[in-house]
Amino acid sequence: MFKHDKQLLKDVRVDGPNPNYASLMLDQLGGPHGELKAALQYLSQSYRIKDEKIKDLFMDIASEELSHMEMVAQTVNLLNGHTLEAMNTSVGTVESHVIGGLAPMLTNASGYPWTGAYIECTGDLAADLLSDISAETRAKVVYEYLYRQINDKGVRETIDFLLNREEAHNTLFREAFNMLQNTGSLQDWGVTQDSKVYFDLSTPGKYFNELKDPQAPRFNTPDQPH
Amino acid sequence: MFKHDKQLLKDVRVDGPNPNYASLMLDQLGGPHGELKAALQYLSQSYRIKDEKIKDLFMDIASEELSHMEMVAQTVNLLNGHTLEAMNTSVGTVESHVIGGLAPMLTNASGYPWTGAYIECTGDLAADLLSDISAETRAKVVYEYLYRQINDKGVRETIDFLLNREEAHNTLFREAFNMLQNTGSLQDWGVTQDSKVYFDLSTPGKYFNELKDPQAPRFNTPDQPH
Amino acid sequence: MFKHDKQLLKDVRVDGPNPNYASLMLDQLGGPHGELKAALQYLSQSYRIKDEKIKDLFMDIASEELSHMEMVAQTVNLLNGHTLEAMNTSVGTVESHVIGGLAPMLTNASGYPWTGAYIECTGDLAADLLSDISAETRAKVVYEYLYRQINDKGVRETIDFLLNREEAHNTLFREAFNMLQNTGSLQDWGVTQDSKVYFDLSTPGKYFNELKDPQAPRFNTPDQPH
Amino acid sequence: MFKHDKQLLKDVRVDGPNPNYASLMLDQLGGPHGELKAALQYLSQSYRIKDEKIKDLFMDIASEELSHMEMVAQTVNLLNGHTLEAMNTSVGTVESHVIGGLAPMLTNASGYPWTGAYIECTGDLAADLLSDISAETRAKVVYEYLYRQINDKGVRETIDFLLNREEAHNTLFREAFNMLQNTGSLQDWGVTQDSKVYFDLSTPGKYFNELKDPQAPRFNTPDQPH
Amino acid sequence: MFKHDKQLLKDVRVDGPNPNYASLMLDQLGGPHGELKAALQYLSQSYRIKDEKIKDLFMDIASEELSHMEMVAQTVNLLNGHTLEAMNTSVGTVESHVIGGLAPMLTNASGYPWTGAYIECTGDLAADLLSDISAETRAKVVYEYLYRQINDKGVRETIDFLLNREEAHNTLFREAFNMLQNTGSLQDWGVTQDSKVYFDLSTPGKYFNELKDPQAPRFNTPDQPH
Amino acid sequence: MFKHDKQLLKDVRVDGPNPNYASLMLDQLGGPHGELKAALQYLSQSYRIKDEKIKDLFMDIASEELSHMEMVAQTVNLLNGHTLEAMNTSVGTVESHVIGGLAPMLTNASGYPWTGAYIECTGDLAADLLSDISAETRAKVVYEYLYRQINDKGVRETIDFLLNREEAHNTLFREAFNMLQNTGSLQDWGVTQDSKVYFDLSTPGKYFNELKDPQAPRFNTPDQPH
Repeated sequence: MFKHDKQLLKDVRVDGPNPNYASLMLDQLGGPHGELKAALQYLSQSYRIKDEKIKDLFMDIASEELSHMEMVAQTVNLLNGHTLEAMNTSVGTVESHVIGGLAPMLTNASGYPWTGAYIECTGDLAADLLSDISAETRAKVVYEYLYRQINDKGVRETIDFLLNREEAHNTLFREAFNMLQNTGSLQDWGVTQDSKVYFDLSTPGKYFNELKDPQAPRFNTPDQPH
Repeated sequence: MFKHDKQLLKDVRVDGPNPNYASLMLDQLGGPHGELKAALQYLSQSYRIKDEKIKDLFMDIASEELSHMEMVAQTVNLLNGHTLEAMNTSVGTVESHVIGGLAPMLTNASGYPWTGAYIECTGDLAADLLSDISAETRAKVVYEYLYRQINDKGVRETIDFLLNREEAHNTLFREAFNMLQNTGSLQDWGVTQDSKVYFDLSTPGKYFNELKDPQAPRFNTPDQPH
Repeated sequence: MFKHDKQLLKDVRVDGPNPNYASLMLDQLGGPHGELKAALQYLSQSYRIKDEKIKDLFMDIASEELSHMEMVAQTVNLLNGHTLEAMNTSVGTVESHVIGGLAPMLTNASGYPWTGAYIECTGDLAADLLSDISAETRAKVVYEYLYRQINDKGVRETIDFLLNREEAHNTLFREAFNMLQNTGSLQDWGVTQDSKVYFDLSTPGKYFNELKDPQAPRFNTPDQPH
Repeated sequence: MFKHDKQLLKDVRVDGPNPNYASLMLDQLGGPHGELKAALQYLSQSYRIKDEKIKDLFMDIASEELSHMEMVAQTVNLLNGHTLEAMNTSVGTVESHVIGGLAPMLTNASGYPWTGAYIECTGDLAADLLSDISAETRAKVVYEYLYRQINDKGVRETIDFLLNREEAHNTLFREAFNMLQNTGSLQDWGVTQDSKVYFDLSTPGKYFNELKDPQAPRFNTPDQPH
Repeated sequence: MFKHDKQLLKDVRVDGPNPNYASLMLDQLGGPHGELKAALQYLSQSYRIKDEKIKDLFMDIASEELSHMEMVAQTVNLLNGHTLEAMNTSVGTVESHVIGGLAPMLTNASGYPWTGAYIECTGDLAADLLSDISAETRAKVVYEYLYRQINDKGVRETIDFLLNREEAHNTLFREAFNMLQNTGSLQDWGVTQDSKVYFDLSTPGKYFNELKDPQAPRFNTPDQPH
Repeated sequence: MFKHDKQLLKDVRVDGPNPNYASLMLDQLGGPHGELKAALQYLSQSYRIKDEKIKDLFMDIASEELSHMEMVAQTVNLLNGHTLEAMNTSVGTVESHVIGGLAPMLTNASGYPWTGAYIECTGDLAADLLSDISAETRAKVVYEYLYRQINDKGVRETIDFLLNREEAHNTLFREAFNMLQNTGSLQDWGVTQDSKVYFDLSTPGKYFNELKDPQAPRFNTPDQPH
């Protein structure tokens, strides 16, 4: 069961309206590496999980991503300001000005509606956690790109917070991943010769070789310097 | 901010596995009239609302729909059982058997991924509430269709609960709609002659006439017999 | 059977070319609340309807929406002018300039192709009519937004006409809806306690209460002041 | 302006219900080579055409395709019968049984909603007519595949009629194509050496050679045996 | 089996960065008439082909289109330059600036992701070749439109090469088409009266007539002046 | 530049036709974790890469995935057999029977067309490699699921080969990932307090804690037992 608290997870503010940047920011609401994607990916994965520790982790983080959605949406609202005038903008989707009355839409920055095709959910814990680790890394990258393209201090504070939260989730997912040993897709790794061959199909250039003793993925312990 | 309570809003059970029916039920998770659509529609609409009463209503119901998602997902889990064998099924999407390890996917019954194109959000309160009233009616209709196609008592109890909740939301949205008067798109209704004409373009047959004094939509008071 | 008359339902004109605004206007051709969506929704719903009065109404209005499509398309043509130069534009989709030779495309203002996912068709008359009433309201809202963002008198005349026609359709659909009594999804409304409960899941704030005697939707008589 | 006549272009009948085949047939309503695609492709292309002969041809055929849609939809209705029971079917989409109350949906046979991405519209008459000729050929192919998979005499009569109409349209589009000479994309064909080279990139095997004197496409006169 | 040679099929260069034009050019990477579509269409069609000559032709051309993709992608890279600043652009999709770090995305110029719905593959050789001939014609048209909208000499050289290659493919596909005689969908053309009728459904205007002796499509010999 | 060798990377065979299983197998051609997705993801990522070692690795593997596509497509062909009769099948998409003449389509097992929305490409090497490692893991999982659901020895041999190749790619991508140090998104990890907090938003249950010294992702050396 979900409950909602009208207090934002962290308050947001902007120095001033910036409808062009509002379109860019929208990507982290309804784009492929945005908060909705993260929330629904972890939610989807959680529905069939047996392991209670990892299920709890998924629900904690999914709830937080739903809470991030509110922060991003409210930032987009403030950036959109109060003037319904598409002609004043020149970057990204115009749907908010044409059909949305400036409300934040569930699309990416170019107006492509969010799609369930973004969701990775395999029912295999190792695969799902790797999907989540890579998803959090991509989310961080997008926040870095967005950060560079704005000087607004309020927006930068919010991005900085969200970016750091993606790092935290990333670290936690790796911690969970390392709790798995020889289960699911991590089993029987590299047992046939086919898993060791290197096909050098692009020429010229060959920098990698046959794999001697391939192992299943495993991260260095996240909390320890490597 | 969203918080999650591991207790389901209402417990679910099934008499036994039924992977074919699991596919049908999936439509109310990731289909056009399903719980995810409802949750995200009300969430999207709420982000820019000023009226605190209606914003609260939207958040109450959005939270409940997120909670319904869990109930539907868990029902699908139980119906899917524990046998990964697509060949035993013959109705609807096979993605859960092919790529999902039996996890419930965010698709409709035929495997089409959920899309943001389902969301109606205009930033006009009257339009948004009418969209919500019609959405709840369609959700009820789908639950009625699903109810007829299963004898499983556990599933029927869950559907019965969810169907009645859609009625409650429907009634509440109408109550909220009737609080609006002459605002937004309800203003200036029927002021030109063009809004009164009847074009009889399909022949033979004409059963409706010129409109004498068209009025903006308004519902009979939901709590009172009409 | 459909027949076509080369005469537009109502002639259109523009004061002058405006390729940026052409992109915005395109939303009412190929967007979620546009004329194609309306035409195909009513057409789809009509295919299985038994009630001959409502079937006739659906066909009358679907034919009119197909005729509106021509008006919008011709307006977009005139606004696009004759210069194939994407660099002169700065708002919305550039597909007409890149692949369409300035022809109006079946996409929204940001270039997302029209999708059947926009169509609401349940086979339940009450649900379908509510979907249509809400669709007409959203269409009106979009025309209002578009009207505000242009000074061109010719475009405004066309929008004014189309906006008023949506009001007419809206009024007629309500008239048809009120002819339904206790049929389909309107039956058995509010019979269990579950349909009366209010879950106050978002805090703080509670403005609505338990529902005493919920009734199925019914509109005030459209032709009479309420 | 479009007008509708309640008389079908040609009456349809079926020997008996066949919900599985109804799903297959649906592809010609809402699939990539179906009647809706044809209608909207010719409609889209017509909107900006100057040549009045070809514009008239496009409108004649677009109107006919809209009329074919009705024939296919009514055939699907009859094949679907009156039993809402998805479990009795085993082939193709189940959306009509889950959310549509047996109404024909605008999807292909596997439930993928119709998309504007199917439409080819370039604003170049030669390209558009070639797109239409190939579209009609594909439509014929699908009707042939469908014909082979049913014994129902009523359905076969309808398919036979529609298949022959696609041939007629195909022939007419070629006639129109041959009226074009050295216009648009047909100009300046094969003027550089690059247009004559043959890159033999897949080995072994080489069956084609350098092109000596490449010409723009042109069909044998359709009405004359070649 | 595919092998890759790091040498481009033909080197590309640009006079200077032009991020706005980069968006337009992107359409020929990930748009409906772009190189990816061409490559995957011919690849898809080839998978089940028996005729070894035509299979070889399809593989030769598919390999070339994959090689064209690299040329277009590298051109987009050069046009994008090195500054990640969406605000400096005003035309087309901003996804490369928001989530892609300036990498070329598989979308059209307005940001719509490439979709398999673009692919025409029927398993009927005549239909597939007609689809390919029309596809090559559309590709040529788009390159013509793009050519007109840029003065950059490097870009124009690349477009000129690619445009001429589409002509070559077009000519070759027609040569292959003419090798087919009375096979597949070319059989039994125009045998019933229904294939000869002209429905004049759009009025006023009638420029075409009954078809006396309709023939299956066949091109003039491409290598010979007609 | 791509060159094609008509020899398959590894020959494929099946014990006998199995059209139902053909649909399942199709997911690895045109589904979210299939060979086309892999090929295009690595291709997309490679287009802007500077590092020549990793670019070479991406091209080697992308070429191999294009070669895997052929193996999967040919397996689907053999499983589809030669009978165009959708009624004989009961699992998954019927498009091959309705519109494809049994040719393998670029869709998933339920008929959803391949979409560019599957592609992860950020222009950040660390993020892209993590995306690739997780993609290869998911591909392995799907092959495991498919393996379990068929007894056909020929199919199992092919799946076994492909599954082991995904392991090889996975191992190689990790080797490449570990060559990155403190670059791009791996920089400045865990520097603010926000990246160390744990929000316990789902109750009851708390199994993870504050993060003391979060580190950027890094894998154990793949070739060495950990």
